[in-house]
Amino acid sequence: MSDECIFCRIINRELPGDIVYEDDRVVAFRDINPQAPVHLLIIPRRHIPTLADVSDDDTELLGHILQVANVLAGKFDVKKSGYRIVNNCGADGGQVVFHLHFHLLGGAPLGRFA
Amino acid sequence: MSDECIFCRIINRELPGDIVYEDDRVVAFRDINPQAPVHLLIIPRRHIPTLADVSDDDTELLGHILQVANVLAGKFDVKKSGYRIVNNCGADGGQVVFHLHFHLLGGAPLGRFA
Repeated sequence: MSDECIFCRIINRELPGDIVYEDDRVVAFRDINPQAPVHLLIIPRRHIPTLADVSDDDTELLGHILQVANVLAGKFDVKKSGYRIVNNCGADGGQVVFHLHFHLLGGAPLGRFA
Repeated sequence: MSDECIFCRIINRELPGDIVYEDDRVVAFRDINPQAPVHLLIIPRRHIPTLADVSDDDTELLGHILQVANVLAGKFDVKKSGYRIVNNCGADGGQVVFHLHFHLLGGAPLGRFA
């Protein structure tokens, strides 16, 4: 973990977070500034700054994050109505917190994505 | 494959597509209606309609798609400047073609994502 990373601190319960899912590799919590009725962040426990920083060994972890997104889409009742998964990577992507995170958005028709 | 799916038909060269990457499981091509200077679609060869339709056996495939996105971010010179990965799933997500696809967007600062 990184002592200065707010997501690592949420994982470690050093900062408050509305955690909705966790397993041995992944944690998910509500976005503090939701852009849709359902807006969750799914993150690896391990501190990986961006998607561009993953290694060849992380393939299964990345797939698992997307599988967890599907589980949460079911849990939050958006699996049939539809949802969006977004990863913002780096400056042009609009990444704000540099701990890899995937947004899960749903609960209403979503707008543009770029 | 699905005979009626335009992405299956691009994979099979029955329809034109500007294919930029392919391997045994994944194909990538330029979006015909780009929303950013770099706008690629990364899809599995197998016809899976939406992210909600993947099975537990697809974890490695999903991770591989994201690894391919990173390879393409490097190839299209947006890995350092930043990029965005988007999957639109179902109606609320704004999915248009019902063959699972991940958007890779980059080449300029991107706007909102929902």
